Parts: sequence; C-alpha cells; structure tokens
Amino acid sequence: MERIIANYFIETPYAPEQAAQVLAGEQSSGTFVAVPGETEELKQRFAARVESVEMLETVTEPAIPGATSKDGKYHRAIVKVSWSIENFGYNLPVMVSTLQGNLYEITQFTGLKLMDIELPASFGTQYSGPAFGIEGCRKLTGVSDRPLIGTIIKPSIGLSVDQTAAIVKTLAEAGIDFVKDDELLSSSANSSFNDRVDAVMKVINTHADKTGKKVMFAFNISGEIDEMKARYEKIVNSGGTCAMISINSVGLSAAKKICDQKQLAIHAHRNGWGMLTRHPLLGIDFRAYQKIWRLAGVDQLHVNGIKNKFWESDDSVVRSIEACLTPLFDHKKVLPVVSSGQWGGQAFETYARTKTVDLLYMAGGGIMAHPMGAAAGVMALQQAWKGAVDGMTLEEAARMYPEFNRSVKKFGK
Amino acid sequence: MERIIANYFIETPYAPEQAAQVLAGEQSSGTFVAVPGETEELKQRFAARVESVEMLETVTEPAIPGATSKDGKYHRAIVKVSWSIENFGYNLPVMVSTLQGNLYEITQFTGLKLMDIELPASFGTQYSGPAFGIEGCRKLTGVSDRPLIGTIIKPSIGLSVDQTAAIVKTLAEAGIDFVKDDELLSSSANSSFNDRVDAVMKVINTHADKTGKKVMFAFNISGEIDEMKARYEKIVNSGGTCAMISINSVGLSAAKKICDQKQLAIHAHRNGWGMLTRHPLLGIDFRAYQKIWRLAGVDQLHVNGIKNKFWESDDSVVRSIEACLTPLFDHKKVLPVVSSGQWGGQAFETYARTKTVDLLYMAGGGIMAHPMGAAAGVMALQQAWKGAVDGMTLEEAARMYPEFNRSVKKFGK
Repeated sequence: MERIIANYFIETPYAPEQAAQVLAGEQSSGTFVAVPGETEELKQRFAARVESVEMLETVTEPAIPGATSKDGKYHRAIVKVSWSIENFGYNLPVMVSTLQGNLYEITQFTGLKLMDIELPASFGTQYSGPAFGIEGCRKLTGVSDRPLIGTIIKPSIGLSVDQTAAIVKTLAEAGIDFVKDDELLSSSANSSFNDRVDAVMKVINTHADKTGKKVMFAFNISGEIDEMKARYEKIVNSGGTCAMISINSVGLSAAKKICDQKQLAIHAHRNGWGMLTRHPLLGIDFRAYQKIWRLAGVDQLHVNGIKNKFWESDDSVVRSIEACLTPLFDHKKVLPVVSSGQWGGQAFETYARTKTVDLLYMAGGGIMAHPMGAAAGVMALQQAWKGAVDGMTLEEAARMYPEFNRSVKKFGK
Repeated sequence: MERIIANYFIETPYAPEQAAQVLAGEQSSGTFVAVPGETEELKQRFAARVESVEMLETVTEPAIPGATSKDGKYHRAIVKVSWSIENFGYNLPVMVSTLQGNLYEITQFTGLKLMDIELPASFGTQYSGPAFGIEGCRKLTGVSDRPLIGTIIKPSIGLSVDQTAAIVKTLAEAGIDFVKDDELLSSSANSSFNDRVDAVMKVINTHADKTGKKVMFAFNISGEIDEMKARYEKIVNSGGTCAMISINSVGLSAAKKICDQKQLAIHAHRNGWGMLTRHPLLGIDFRAYQKIWRLAGVDQLHVNGIKNKFWESDDSVVRSIEACLTPLFDHKKVLPVVSSGQWGGQAFETYARTKTVDLLYMAGGGIMAHPMGAAAGVMALQQAWKGAVDGMTLEEAARMYPEFNRSVKKFGK
C-alpha cells in the first residue's frame, strides 16, 4: 500500500527516536491508555511509522517551550514518518491534519518543523495540479522567452475605481504583462469589486483589441466561498484571465474549489506565511507548503525576492524558486512570483542563482516611480532581465540600456 | 467611521513606535517609494493608525530572526493598531490578511504576535455568530446543569464501522452526552464516512427512541467543500446533530460556509494550533483566534485541558476557557471543549479556576478504560463534576463516589 512520508526538523530533550515514536503514535492511534479494539493487526495497517532518524547538533537552550531537559541537552534531528494512504485517502485537509495537526502540541518537542512531503504516485492522477501553470500563464500573456513583468497597484488601498483604471491604462500602454490588486484590497468603500472589474477590464480589453496583447490582471476575490464564486464569474464574464486568492486567509478547501473551476489562472498570495515559517524550528518549510498548494491547483505562488525588504534570506528565496520549478508528477509547474522591493537590479543575482526566466517578476514603485515614466520602468525591467540572461553584469547592462540606467541611479543604493 | 483595533505583542531592535508605524504602513498604503495618487486625504481615510504603544521589558537576544540590533537591545511592547472598516468591509479572510498577513514578514520585528482584536459594533449584526452555541448544544443533548460529558472514539484510526458502532452503543448505554471522530479519521479504507454515519446513527437513533436521549456525535466532515456539504447533508438526513471540522486544515471560507447552514452544531477542532501559538512571540493568541472563529459561527471550540498531556500551561487553558465564555456582542457563546488526558480528576481545578460548568468535558481512555466499564467511566466523570461544584476536594469526592474512586486509583497518579 502506498505511503506518504513527512520529513520533520525536530528538537527534543529526549532521544529523537523516542520523540518520533510519540509523534507517530499521536498521529495515528494515540491515547494515554490501551483501549479494547486496538489489535496488533489494526496497528500494523494504520499506524504511522518512523522511517528514519538522522541526528544533527545538540544545543543547550530549547527553541520553543516544551519539556525540560534533565541533562540540559536538546537534540536536533531530521526524522521521517510515514502513513498509509488508507488512513485518509485523497483528502487534502485531513492529510494536513495528519501531517501538521496535533503534533505541534507534543510536549516532547522543543522544536518541530515540517520540511518536506513525499507524495505517492497515485496523487499524480488523483490531483490534476495547476490548470494553467507556467505554460498556461505564458500563453495567456503572450510572453515566451523572459519573465512575465508585473506590478501591484499602489497605494494598496484607497484608490478610487477610476484612479485604478487610469493606472492600469498607463501600465498597459507601458507594455506590462501582469497587474494585481494588493491583498489588502478586495472590495473597499471607494472601490467595489464589481465596479473595479468593469473599469479595469474595459481598459484591458480596449488595449487588447488595439494591440493584441491582453494584460493579465489578478483581481483579489478573497472572501466567503459564494462571494468568491460570484467574483470569479464576474471576471470570467468580463474577459479577465486571472483571480487572486490569499490562500492562508481563505484556506485550503475553498481555495481548491476555486482552482477546480479552471477558467482563470489562480494567483496564490501567501500573506501570513511569515507566521508559519519564520521560526527555524516551528511551522512548515516552503518545500512542503508549495506541494500542498500545487495539489490544490494554484497557478502562481509567491516566493519573495532577492534582496527583499522583508526578513527572508536570499538563500531561502532561491530554494523556494527551485522548489516551484521542481516537477511534481506530470503536472504543470507553478509559476514563482518574485516580489518585495524589486526594481530590476536583482535580476542579475536572481538569474545567476536560479538560471531560469520562468518567473513572474513583480516590481511596485520600481515601475510607477521610474523617473522617465512607467513605460521606461517596464522597459528597464525587461532590459535588466535581457542583460542578466546575456551574461552581463548590472553595470554593463546599465551602460547598454538608458532606461535601466536611470533605474540604477534611482533605486540602486 | 468604525475601526477595528488589533493588539500585538512585539519585539524590535528599533523604537517600538517606529516599528509599529512600519507595520501600519505595510498593512495599508506601504510601498518603498512614493507613487502618484497617494494623496494626503486618501491616506487619512484608509491608513492604519498606531493607537498606542505600551513599553515592556528590553532583552538582549532576539526571539526570532529579523533585523540585528546595533546596541544589542531588543524592546518588547504591546502596540495597538487600527483600521477603518471602510478598508475591507465585512470580509473575514481580508480582515485576516490585514491583521495577520504580510506584517509577519517585516524585518523590523524580531517577534510579533496578534494578541486580541477589538471588533466594532456593526460586526455584531453583520455576523450572527454560533447558531447553537452553549445553549443550543445543551438543548440538543438535554444536559442542563453540568458539563456535557464526551469522548473520542479511539484508536483514532483503524476501527471498522461495526467496531465503531459497537463502541458507540456501549457509550450511549453508559449515558454519554457526546462522542466524536478523531481528527485523523474522516473516511478511511475500512471506515467510509457514509457507512459510519449509517451504522452510528442507527445506534444513536435506536437509543434515543428507547430513552429519549440523543447522543450528539461529531462526525468529521473535513474535506473539500462539496464533499463537506454532501457529508453535512448525510448527517442531517440521518438524524445527526453535529459535524466536526478541523478548522485550520479546512480554512476560514469553507468553514464559514458550513456554519452558515445552521442545521448542525459545528464542533471546531483546532489541530495545527500549536504551530500558530506555541512560540510566545510569534503567531496568534487564543483570545484573537477564538473571536475570528466565533464570527465564522462555530459552536464548540477546543481549548485543551488542565494538566493536559501537551505543552500548554494550565494558565493558558484557563484563559482560553474564559475567552470563550466572554460575551461577543449578543451572539450565543461558543462551548469550550476541554480535552487531552482528562479523566475527571482535573474537574476540581478546572471548576475552581473557571467557576463554570459550561463545558464539553472530553475524556478518552478515562471512560473506555475504566476498570468497572464505560458506564462507570461516564458516571465517574459526572461524579467528579458534582463533587467539584459541591465544593468537595478530589479526596472527598473519591470517598463519596465508588466509580470515581476507581478512576482515581487507575488514572490519578
């Protein structure tokens, strides 16, 4: 019978093998005394199994509150635990409860992070993955050999529908590939969702009729499920190609339902992610996280960016991009969304470290605040990426391309 | 205009007031350069506002990775930040993205936890809260003046439908008020959801016809949204009174949709909660968490228990019970679900510290493994609570009640 394997980074004052057994017991047949009906045969079939324990360093301070060590030592290890798929079948929320549920409560651990999930082959056919993915998003935007260049409408919240549409018009004429709502905006007092879709899609459709290029706009449909469905339909009926969901806020079951419609590319915003991953020994690593969301079917997923304005290290960002580009079954790959403080200067290191142009590269102020205007801002980003792919340094690209040169002068400090 | 206020426990190497301003900027109009359209009037209306900063201790080690302090000091504080409800209206997922979103990424913080939310009055009418709550669950089970006594079918996973039904029969005859699936079980290879509902409800309905008492069984409907709806209907059509959801795994939008049906009491299991709260300076505190889920409409919510087998302190458990019993508008109150390693002995301290019997008090092995059988196990729990409410000590109650006496001998170490 197929099994799902979870890899955890743990810390414990106990022998890691023993702590891992507690985890396996708690997450399959655990109770604090033996009860009738708990036969050996049944245990064999449904019990979680500790597959391996790889010892790491020992430390003298616990990472998070838990059991106190008698000898003052806390052991770190990578443990692999497996479950038969007979336990929960094909049910992502129950899989999450099994791999990421009560185990975070176990006092034997002073640190526990789900690092990765190894999925059995049948998941590849039971789930269809992203309906669009990288190739579908490229087709929808007509961009084949460079990153999609995108931006976020700023300020995040407060612009009227007409102001938003005017900015979209500027951006479309500037040659942008992708624009999105901020995650803080869904429907606000001066920008109702439907009015915004009407105004923005009028601009985008008019521009597409004229030029043949349809800008992808990710409208933030996050909300209750019926509201999300209605908003999704509104986008479809208005000729839009994308909807955005704040996946952590909306949750897995509703997000999957939206992905299953398969008429729009789904832009997955991971706001709240810092809470789930920022501590090195608590929560979930992006490698595991992105697999769950690819199974749910999101087409685009945020990964932060090199030299971002947030806490995340460049190494972590690179690992996240690599994770998204690693095949999962024969599903379409999810498009990594690079953002946060990006202006083009980071293209060089991003390309040097990932060797890919399969990205949605988002710059906020980097486009709208370009000294020569938004069109020059978009051009500067394309130039930066062309330079990076052609093996130029930032300085060489800045000498070659005047628009990028101005970006470097304004943002490159 | 009404505002929502969020209280955060923060740690920062910067002046807390300054870090709080970064948070407010990031969560309303933040971008790294000024853009056209960002007028002063618009900022006033939609900007988040730092309402207060209460300084706490200063420490020399950061709680989580973030900006490094130049003077080696990290300041802790409680900060209150507010948003106009014009920003997101009545949209729980977008409220969560605003109060609990990208702010966890901000490098200026080396610790950030959402402690509480102050909701404006209009939320009291826009949301109806639990459809059943404490009073409704009491009505459905016919229990008026003591905690509802419940148990979890164990082993968590692996029992056949017939084995489960046989245990439910034993428990019903023992006088139990409430039984639930484990969160690891929804539909397994040897216990399909529908078959289990058929078999269990046959037992429960037969027992109700004979005695007038209908045991409340929380079937775990967690899954994709259409599946959850179908399972919900199955329970309704079978005469059941309750459905269970793993709220963190299923997510807010789908859970609310289920609560909105209002035909079944919703048992909210918070597995995964440890990940969100276990670090003292990361994530979300139960006070804030339970408000979000009460707005979504859950009727019963897990709070762990006194002397539980997990990491959580008794003080934290008591605060959680108090939070659930604190009125939220004129909504029905959510029933706190006390569980984990409970056997009756904890009734005394639970009552002494909370002075309430408005609890669903869950014991696992404490009932099924009682030396005199399950009926004595249920009786022992009722006796413990009667003793506690009558002001007895554990020892006095053990002298008075033979069934509880045996529990003390078996479990009271």
